[in-house]
Amino acid sequence: MAKRLLTSLTLMATMAAGASFADGHIAGAIKARQGQMQLYAHYLGVLGGMARGNTEYNAEAAQAAADSLLAVASISGATLWPQGSDMDSVEGTRAKAAIWENFADVGAKSMAVTTAAANMATAAGTDLESLRAAMGDLGGTCGACHKAYRGR
Amino acid sequence: MAKRLLTSLTLMATMAAGASFADGHIAGAIKARQGQMQLYAHYLGVLGGMARGNTEYNAEAAQAAADSLLAVASISGATLWPQGSDMDSVEGTRAKAAIWENFADVGAKSMAVTTAAANMATAAGTDLESLRAAMGDLGGTCGACHKAYRGR
Repeated sequence: MAKRLLTSLTLMATMAAGASFADGHIAGAIKARQGQMQLYAHYLGVLGGMARGNTEYNAEAAQAAADSLLAVASISGATLWPQGSDMDSVEGTRAKAAIWENFADVGAKSMAVTTAAANMATAAGTDLESLRAAMGDLGGTCGACHKAYRGR
Repeated sequence: MAKRLLTSLTLMATMAAGASFADGHIAGAIKARQGQMQLYAHYLGVLGGMARGNTEYNAEAAQAAADSLLAVASISGATLWPQGSDMDSVEGTRAKAAIWENFADVGAKSMAVTTAAANMATAAGTDLESLRAAMGDLGGTCGACHKAYRGR
């Protein structure tokens, strides 16, 4: 009973704070952009595994992963981040409302990811040293956006 | 009690059939390919909304969605479909084991999606009629793979 009360209070507090369950349009956009992040993580994992020596360097596989990463970075975000899809407004996302207040900065950080991904696509198939050299910058551009705009 | 027994029996039956929880490597690949499907669904939704007249046709927005769809179709599947990531082997996926027994056919169906997406990228920004004309073929190529290789 006490637990049920606590659950109800938590739910009420959440609703009072403004967050609610996303409607179909918003929920679909959130799922899609989270899908983009999963793909980033996957191909970064393939490249990172080679960079750290956990998997053997393979130029063809590295090139395919880097090309894929660049493709993922090149998709349009225009419909993936609709107004009202921030973590204060809906459940199931860690996207800070600050994103929608700093579009110019978000755009610049997004462009930095694409540039770093393009550099990786040039480097990855060359040799392991080149791949390793491109890795830090790529991870840094991901982290810069997460640090500023991803909540807990 | 009867329900708990039933749950136990179901779990035992599932384990007997070979399905288990995916390890990190397999689980990551499944999440990533499901992310790819979410992105397909999202951009198809944008284009489909215009095709059905639910949203107003906008050449620039249609082109961005179609270009994104083509980018999503062009990513490498080499590491997204590891052996042992089928629905008979692990939880959380509807990928039929038949995929790994019919790689040539899967490859052909995947290529058909990419071709249809390329045709959409040519059509979408032209006008609404062209977009509509490209839609059926695109949906058909998605459906062909789902029908053959996606379980329930």
